[in-house]
Amino acid sequence: MTLAKDVSLCHHYPSDMTRWQPDARGRLEQAALELYGERGFEQTTVAEIAGRAGLTERTFFRYFADKREVLFAGGNALQELLVAGVAGAPDEVTPIDAVASALEAAGGRLQERRDYARRRQAVIAANSELRERELSKLASFAAALAEALRARGVDEPAASLTAEVGIAVFRIAFERWVEATGEVDLPELIRESLDELAALAS
Amino acid sequence: MTLAKDVSLCHHYPSDMTRWQPDARGRLEQAALELYGERGFEQTTVAEIAGRAGLTERTFFRYFADKREVLFAGGNALQELLVAGVAGAPDEVTPIDAVASALEAAGGRLQERRDYARRRQAVIAANSELRERELSKLASFAAALAEALRARGVDEPAASLTAEVGIAVFRIAFERWVEATGEVDLPELIRESLDELAALAS
Repeated sequence: MTLAKDVSLCHHYPSDMTRWQPDARGRLEQAALELYGERGFEQTTVAEIAGRAGLTERTFFRYFADKREVLFAGGNALQELLVAGVAGAPDEVTPIDAVASALEAAGGRLQERRDYARRRQAVIAANSELRERELSKLASFAAALAEALRARGVDEPAASLTAEVGIAVFRIAFERWVEATGEVDLPELIRESLDELAALAS
Repeated sequence: MTLAKDVSLCHHYPSDMTRWQPDARGRLEQAALELYGERGFEQTTVAEIAGRAGLTERTFFRYFADKREVLFAGGNALQELLVAGVAGAPDEVTPIDAVASALEAAGGRLQERRDYARRRQAVIAANSELRERELSKLASFAAALAEALRARGVDEPAASLTAEVGIAVFRIAFERWVEATGEVDLPELIRESLDELAALAS
Protein backbone atom coordinates (compact mmCIF):
# COMPACT_ATOMS: atom_id res chain seq x y z
CA MET A 1 0.00 0.00 0.00
CA THR A 2 2.76 2.42 0.98
CA LEU A 3 4.74 1.61 -2.11
CA ALA A 4 1.70 2.10 -4.36
CA LYS A 5 1.11 5.50 -2.81
CA ASP A 6 4.70 6.59 -3.48
CA VAL A 7 4.51 5.45 -7.06
CA SER A 8 1.32 7.37 -7.57
CA LEU A 9 2.94 10.50 -6.13
CA CYS A 10 5.89 10.11 -8.47
CA HIS A 11 3.52 9.74 -11.33
CA HIS A 12 1.68 12.85 -10.30
CA TYR A 13 4.90 14.91 -10.26
CA PRO A 14 6.95 13.09 -12.87
CA SER A 15 9.75 15.59 -13.29
CA ASP A 16 10.10 16.59 -9.66
CA MET A 17 13.13 14.85 -8.19
CA THR A 18 13.80 17.53 -5.68
CA ARG A 19 12.54 16.17 -2.44
CA TRP A 20 15.55 13.90 -2.58
CA GLN A 21 18.03 16.58 -3.66
CA PRO A 22 20.44 17.81 -1.03
CA ASP A 23 20.83 21.59 -0.57
CA ALA A 24 18.35 22.54 -3.28
CA ARG A 25 18.11 26.06 -1.83
CA GLY A 26 21.85 26.68 -1.97
CA ARG A 27 22.11 25.29 -5.49
CA LEU A 28 19.27 27.52 -6.69
CA GLU A 29 20.90 30.59 -5.11
CA GLN A 30 24.21 29.76 -6.72
CA ALA A 31 22.67 29.10 -10.14
CA ALA A 32 20.59 32.30 -10.00
CA LEU A 33 23.59 34.43 -9.12
CA GLU A 34 25.66 32.90 -11.93
CA LEU A 35 22.95 33.57 -14.47
CA TYR A 36 22.19 37.11 -13.24
CA GLY A 37 25.90 37.85 -13.54
CA GLU A 38 26.20 36.34 -17.02
CA ARG A 39 22.96 37.56 -18.65
CA GLY A 40 21.57 40.18 -16.34
CA PHE A 41 18.71 39.83 -13.86
CA GLU A 42 15.95 40.77 -16.27
CA GLN A 43 17.03 38.37 -19.01
CA THR A 44 17.08 35.34 -16.71
CA THR A 45 14.03 33.11 -16.26
CA VAL A 46 13.11 30.83 -13.37
CA ALA A 47 13.21 27.87 -15.79
CA GLU A 48 16.84 28.68 -16.61
CA ILE A 49 17.78 28.96 -12.94
CA ALA A 50 16.17 25.64 -12.13
CA GLY A 51 17.82 24.05 -15.16
CA ARG A 52 21.28 25.31 -14.20
CA ALA A 53 20.77 23.92 -10.69
CA GLY A 54 19.60 20.58 -12.09
CA LEU A 55 16.19 21.06 -10.48
CA THR A 56 12.66 21.85 -11.62
CA GLU A 57 10.69 25.09 -11.64
CA ARG A 58 8.32 23.49 -9.16
CA THR A 59 11.21 23.07 -6.76
CA PHE A 60 12.28 26.65 -7.29
CA PHE A 61 8.85 27.89 -6.23
CA ARG A 62 8.93 25.68 -3.16
CA TYR A 63 11.81 27.85 -1.86
CA PHE A 64 11.30 31.27 -3.45
CA ALA A 65 8.26 33.36 -4.40
CA ASP A 66 9.97 34.71 -7.52
CA LYS A 67 13.38 35.27 -9.08
CA ARG A 68 13.89 38.48 -7.13
CA GLU A 69 13.47 36.77 -3.78
CA VAL A 70 16.39 34.41 -4.45
CA LEU A 71 18.58 37.43 -3.75
CA PHE A 72 16.78 38.51 -0.58
CA ALA A 73 15.71 35.35 1.22
CA GLY A 74 19.06 35.24 3.05
CA GLY A 75 18.22 38.58 4.61
CA ASN A 76 15.72 36.94 6.95
CA ALA A 77 18.43 34.93 8.68
CA LEU A 78 20.56 38.08 8.94
CA GLN A 79 17.69 39.99 10.49
CA GLU A 80 17.13 37.23 13.06
CA LEU A 81 20.83 37.37 13.88
CA LEU A 82 20.65 41.15 14.40
CA VAL A 83 17.61 40.88 16.65
CA ALA A 84 19.18 38.02 18.65
CA GLY A 85 22.36 40.06 19.02
CA VAL A 86 20.52 43.00 20.57
CA ALA A 87 18.28 40.80 22.72
CA GLY A 88 21.27 38.78 23.96
CA ALA A 89 23.48 41.74 24.92
CA PRO A 90 24.08 42.06 28.70
CA ASP A 91 21.63 44.37 30.51
CA GLU A 92 24.27 46.96 31.39
CA VAL A 93 25.32 47.52 27.77
CA THR A 94 24.28 50.85 26.17
CA PRO A 95 21.85 50.79 23.22
CA ILE A 96 24.53 51.63 20.64
CA ASP A 97 26.86 48.95 22.03
CA ALA A 98 24.07 46.37 21.89
CA VAL A 99 23.52 47.30 18.25
CA ALA A 100 27.27 47.29 17.62
CA SER A 101 27.69 43.71 18.82
CA ALA A 102 24.68 42.62 16.77
CA LEU A 103 26.14 44.24 13.65
CA GLU A 104 29.53 42.61 14.23
CA ALA A 105 27.86 39.20 14.57
CA ALA A 106 25.97 39.76 11.31
CA GLY A 107 29.20 40.97 9.71
CA GLY A 108 30.95 37.78 10.81
CA ARG A 109 28.25 35.69 9.15
CA LEU A 110 28.56 37.65 5.90
CA GLN A 111 32.34 37.41 6.02
CA GLU A 112 32.06 33.65 5.46
CA ARG A 113 30.39 34.31 2.11
CA ARG A 114 32.32 37.29 0.80
CA ASP A 115 32.51 36.09 -2.80
CA TYR A 116 28.76 35.44 -2.87
CA ALA A 117 28.04 38.83 -1.25
CA ARG A 118 30.18 40.70 -3.77
CA ARG A 119 28.62 39.05 -6.79
CA ARG A 120 25.16 39.58 -5.35
CA GLN A 121 25.93 43.28 -4.81
CA ALA A 122 27.03 43.71 -8.42
CA VAL A 123 23.71 42.26 -9.63
CA ILE A 124 21.72 44.54 -7.32
CA ALA A 125 23.69 47.64 -8.27
CA ALA A 126 22.79 47.09 -11.93
CA ASN A 127 19.01 47.11 -11.45
CA SER A 128 16.91 49.90 -9.92
CA GLU A 129 14.08 47.59 -8.82
CA LEU A 130 16.60 45.44 -6.94
CA ARG A 131 18.23 48.51 -5.40
CA GLU A 132 14.83 49.62 -4.07
CA ARG A 133 14.19 46.13 -2.70
CA GLU A 134 17.59 46.20 -0.96
CA LEU A 135 16.80 49.56 0.64
CA SER A 136 13.50 48.15 1.79
CA LYS A 137 15.28 45.19 3.37
CA LEU A 138 17.69 47.51 5.19
CA ALA A 139 14.73 49.57 6.45
CA SER A 140 13.21 46.38 7.78
CA PHE A 141 16.50 45.55 9.56
CA ALA A 142 16.36 49.00 11.20
CA ALA A 143 12.73 48.50 12.25
CA ALA A 144 13.58 45.09 13.74
CA LEU A 145 16.57 46.53 15.62
CA ALA A 146 14.41 49.36 17.00
CA GLU A 147 11.82 46.82 18.16
CA ALA A 148 14.54 44.76 19.87
CA LEU A 149 15.85 47.91 21.62
CA ARG A 150 12.37 48.84 22.84
CA ALA A 151 12.08 45.32 24.24
CA ARG A 152 15.21 46.15 26.28
CA GLY A 153 13.43 49.20 27.67
CA VAL A 154 14.96 51.83 25.38
CA ASP A 155 12.51 54.70 24.81
CA GLU A 156 11.54 56.36 21.56
CA PRO A 157 12.97 58.20 19.67
CA ALA A 158 16.29 56.86 21.02
CA ALA A 159 15.46 53.29 19.96
CA SER A 160 14.66 54.21 16.34
CA LEU A 161 17.53 56.66 16.09
CA THR A 162 20.06 54.14 17.39
CA ALA A 163 18.71 51.48 15.03
CA GLU A 164 18.76 53.76 11.97
CA VAL A 165 22.23 55.03 12.77
CA GLY A 166 23.41 51.45 13.31
CA ILE A 167 22.14 50.45 9.88
CA ALA A 168 23.82 53.52 8.35
CA VAL A 169 27.12 52.40 9.92
CA PHE A 170 26.55 48.89 8.63
CA ARG A 171 25.85 50.10 5.08
CA ILE A 172 29.03 52.17 4.92
CA ALA A 173 31.15 49.31 6.27
CA PHE A 174 29.45 46.84 3.92
CA GLU A 175 30.12 49.05 0.88
CA ARG A 176 33.79 49.40 1.79
CA TRP A 177 34.02 45.64 2.29
CA VAL A 178 32.39 44.84 -1.07
CA GLU A 179 34.55 47.35 -2.94
CA ALA A 180 37.87 46.48 -1.28
CA THR A 181 40.30 44.56 -3.46
CA GLY A 182 42.48 42.89 -0.82
CA GLU A 183 41.58 40.86 2.23
CA VAL A 184 39.34 42.86 4.53
CA ASP A 185 37.35 41.84 7.56
CA LEU A 186 33.77 43.11 7.69
CA PRO A 187 33.42 43.04 11.50
CA GLU A 188 36.60 45.13 11.68
CA LEU A 189 35.25 47.65 9.17
CA ILE A 190 32.06 47.85 11.23
CA ARG A 191 34.10 48.64 14.36
CA GLU A 192 36.01 51.32 12.42
CA SER A 193 32.77 52.90 11.23
CA LEU A 194 31.43 52.91 14.78
CA ASP A 195 34.58 54.68 15.96
CA GLU A 196 34.18 57.17 13.16
CA LEU A 197 30.57 57.71 14.22
CA ALA A 198 31.67 58.52 17.75
CA ALA A 199 34.23 60.97 16.37
CA LEU A 200 31.86 62.74 13.98
CA ALA A 201 28.99 63.06 16.45
CA SER A 202 31.01 64.34 19.38
CA MET B 1 -0.72 86.85 -38.68
CA THR B 2 0.09 86.41 -35.03
CA LEU B 3 -3.55 86.06 -34.15
CA ALA B 4 -4.06 83.44 -36.85
CA LYS B 5 -1.14 81.44 -35.51
CA ASP B 6 -2.61 81.49 -32.00
CA VAL B 7 -5.96 80.39 -33.26
CA SER B 8 -4.38 77.53 -35.17
CA LEU B 9 -2.51 76.48 -32.03
CA CYS B 10 -5.75 76.53 -30.07
CA HIS B 11 -7.37 74.46 -32.72
CA HIS B 12 -4.53 71.99 -32.57
CA TYR B 13 -4.85 71.50 -28.81
CA PRO B 14 -8.56 72.15 -28.41
CA SER B 15 -8.98 70.97 -24.83
CA ASP B 16 -5.70 72.23 -23.46
CA MET B 17 -6.27 75.40 -21.53
CA THR B 18 -3.29 74.94 -19.32
CA ARG B 19 -0.72 77.30 -20.66
CA TRP B 20 -2.94 80.02 -19.28
CA GLN B 21 -3.66 78.30 -16.00
CA PRO B 22 -1.85 79.65 -12.98
CA ASP B 23 -0.08 77.15 -10.70
CA ALA B 24 -1.04 74.06 -12.68
CA ARG B 25 1.63 72.06 -10.87
CA GLY B 26 0.36 72.95 -7.41
CA ARG B 27 -3.25 72.24 -8.37
CA LEU B 28 -2.32 68.83 -9.77
CA GLU B 29 -0.39 67.96 -6.59
CA GLN B 30 -3.31 69.02 -4.45
CA ALA B 31 -5.86 67.13 -6.56
CA ALA B 32 -3.72 63.97 -6.61
CA LEU B 33 -3.27 63.99 -2.86
CA GLU B 34 -7.01 64.47 -2.28
CA LEU B 35 -7.87 61.57 -4.57
CA TYR B 36 -5.15 59.26 -3.18
CA GLY B 37 -6.51 59.97 0.28
CA GLU B 38 -10.14 59.40 -0.72
CA ARG B 39 -9.82 56.38 -3.01
CA GLY B 40 -6.32 55.06 -2.52
CA PHE B 41 -3.31 55.54 -4.77
CA GLU B 42 -3.92 52.47 -6.93
CA GLN B 43 -7.56 53.26 -7.62
CA THR B 44 -6.84 56.79 -8.88
CA THR B 45 -6.20 57.55 -12.55
CA VAL B 46 -4.32 60.44 -14.13
CA ALA B 47 -7.55 61.44 -15.91
CA GLU B 48 -9.29 61.80 -12.54
CA ILE B 49 -6.44 63.87 -11.11
CA ALA B 50 -6.45 66.21 -14.09
CA GLY B 51 -10.26 66.44 -13.94
CA ARG B 52 -10.25 67.32 -10.24
CA ALA B 53 -7.66 70.05 -10.92
CA GLY B 54 -9.72 71.37 -13.85
CA LEU B 55 -6.88 70.53 -16.25
CA THR B 56 -6.20 67.96 -18.97
CA GLU B 57 -4.20 64.75 -18.93
CA ARG B 58 -1.85 66.36 -21.43
CA THR B 59 -1.08 69.05 -18.90
CA PHE B 60 -0.53 66.47 -16.19
CA PHE B 61 2.14 64.78 -18.28
CA ARG B 62 3.82 68.09 -18.95
CA TYR B 63 4.68 68.24 -15.24
CA PHE B 64 4.87 64.62 -14.10
CA ALA B 65 6.04 61.36 -15.69
CA ASP B 66 3.31 59.35 -13.96
CA LYS B 67 0.93 59.43 -11.01
CA ARG B 68 3.63 58.21 -8.64
CA GLU B 69 5.95 61.12 -9.44
CA VAL B 70 3.36 63.68 -8.32
CA LEU B 71 4.29 62.62 -4.80
CA PHE B 72 8.06 62.77 -5.31
CA ALA B 73 8.76 65.69 -7.64
CA GLY B 74 8.98 68.04 -4.64
CA GLY B 75 11.93 66.01 -3.39
CA ASN B 76 14.18 67.50 -6.06
CA ALA B 77 13.85 70.98 -4.61
CA LEU B 78 14.48 69.58 -1.14
CA GLN B 79 17.63 67.82 -2.35
CA GLU B 80 18.92 71.05 -3.90
CA LEU B 81 18.27 72.81 -0.61
CA LEU B 82 20.25 70.15 1.27
CA VAL B 83 23.19 70.36 -1.12
CA ALA B 84 23.17 74.17 -1.05
CA GLY B 85 23.08 74.06 2.76
CA VAL B 86 26.22 71.92 2.94
CA ALA B 87 28.00 73.87 0.21
CA GLY B 88 27.16 77.20 1.83
CA ALA B 89 28.28 76.32 5.36
CA PRO B 90 31.36 78.28 6.52
CA ASP B 91 34.69 76.53 5.92
CA GLU B 92 35.47 76.06 9.61
CA VAL B 93 32.24 74.15 10.31
CA THR B 94 32.58 70.38 10.97
CA PRO B 95 30.98 67.95 8.49
CA ILE B 96 28.14 66.98 10.85
CA ASP B 97 27.39 70.65 11.60
CA ALA B 98 27.31 71.45 7.88
CA VAL B 99 24.82 68.61 7.42
CA ALA B 100 22.87 69.76 10.49
CA SER B 101 22.35 73.27 9.12
CA ALA B 102 21.31 71.84 5.75
CA LEU B 103 18.77 69.54 7.41
CA GLU B 104 17.35 72.40 9.47
CA ALA B 105 16.94 74.52 6.34
CA ALA B 106 15.12 71.65 4.62
CA GLY B 107 13.04 71.15 7.74
CA GLY B 108 12.07 74.81 7.69
CA ARG B 109 10.86 74.47 4.12
CA LEU B 110 8.78 71.38 4.97
CA GLN B 111 7.37 73.11 8.05
CA GLU B 112 5.53 75.55 5.77
CA ARG B 113 3.58 72.63 4.28
CA ARG B 114 2.93 70.45 7.29
CA ASP B 115 -0.63 69.54 6.36
CA TYR B 116 0.46 68.54 2.85
CA ALA B 117 3.41 66.53 4.20
CA ARG B 118 1.21 64.65 6.67
CA ARG B 119 -1.39 63.70 4.10
CA ARG B 120 1.33 62.70 1.65
CA GLN B 121 2.94 60.49 4.29
CA ALA B 122 -0.34 58.70 4.99
CA VAL B 123 -0.67 57.87 1.28
CA ILE B 124 2.90 56.58 1.10
CA ALA B 125 2.59 54.50 4.26
CA ALA B 126 -0.38 52.65 2.73
CA ASN B 127 1.46 51.41 -0.39
CA SER B 128 4.61 49.29 -0.48
CA GLU B 129 5.69 50.52 -3.93
CA LEU B 130 5.49 54.11 -2.68
CA ARG B 131 7.37 53.24 0.49
CA GLU B 132 10.20 51.78 -1.61
CA ARG B 133 10.23 54.90 -3.79
CA GLU B 134 10.45 57.07 -0.67
CA LEU B 135 13.41 55.06 0.63
CA SER B 136 15.08 55.45 -2.74
CA LYS B 137 14.57 59.21 -2.58
CA LEU B 138 16.10 59.34 0.90
CA ALA B 139 19.08 57.30 -0.35
CA SER B 140 19.52 59.83 -3.12
CA PHE B 141 19.46 62.66 -0.54
CA ALA B 142 22.24 60.86 1.35
CA ALA B 143 24.29 60.38 -1.83
CA ALA B 144 23.89 64.07 -2.70
CA LEU B 145 24.92 65.14 0.82
CA ALA B 146 27.99 62.88 0.66
CA GLU B 147 28.96 64.40 -2.68
CA ALA B 148 28.58 67.92 -1.25
CA LEU B 149 30.77 66.95 1.72
CA ARG B 150 33.48 65.53 -0.56
CA ALA B 151 33.39 68.81 -2.47
CA ARG B 152 34.24 70.48 0.89
CA GLY B 153 37.28 68.20 1.16
CA VAL B 154 35.79 65.60 3.52
CA ASP B 155 37.35 62.18 2.88
CA GLU B 156 35.64 58.83 2.52
CA PRO B 157 34.22 57.02 4.42
CA ALA B 158 33.59 60.03 6.69
CA ALA B 159 31.61 61.86 3.98
CA SER B 160 29.24 58.94 3.32
CA LEU B 161 28.91 58.06 6.98
CA THR B 162 28.07 61.65 7.98
CA ALA B 163 25.55 61.90 5.13
CA GLU B 164 23.85 58.59 5.97
CA VAL B 165 23.71 59.39 9.65
CA GLY B 166 22.33 62.84 8.84
CA ILE B 167 19.53 61.31 6.80
CA ALA B 168 18.81 58.84 9.62
CA VAL B 169 18.46 61.78 12.00
CA PHE B 170 16.21 63.53 9.52
CA ARG B 171 13.95 60.49 9.11
CA ILE B 172 13.43 60.08 12.84
CA ALA B 173 12.65 63.78 13.30
CA PHE B 174 10.36 63.74 10.27
CA GLU B 175 8.40 60.74 11.58
CA ARG B 176 7.93 62.38 14.98
CA TRP B 177 6.79 65.57 13.26
CA VAL B 178 4.28 63.79 11.04
CA GLU B 179 2.86 61.77 13.92
CA ALA B 180 2.69 64.59 16.49
CA THR B 181 -0.81 65.82 17.27
CA GLY B 182 -0.05 69.31 18.56
CA GLU B 183 2.05 72.12 17.13
CA VAL B 184 5.61 70.93 16.61
CA ASP B 185 8.50 72.52 14.80
CA LEU B 186 10.45 70.23 12.46
CA PRO B 187 13.77 72.15 12.63
CA GLU B 188 13.55 71.91 16.43
CA LEU B 189 12.92 68.15 16.27
CA ILE B 190 15.93 67.83 13.96
CA ARG B 191 18.10 69.66 16.50
CA GLU B 192 16.80 67.38 19.25
CA SER B 193 17.64 64.29 17.19
CA LEU B 194 21.13 65.62 16.54
CA ASP B 195 21.64 66.14 20.28
CA GLU B 196 20.38 62.63 20.89
CA LEU B 197 22.84 61.36 18.26
CA ALA B 198 25.73 63.02 20.08
CA ALA B 199 24.55 61.43 23.34
CA LEU B 200 24.12 57.92 21.97
CA ALA B 201 27.38 57.87 20.03
CA SER B 202 29.60 59.22 22.80
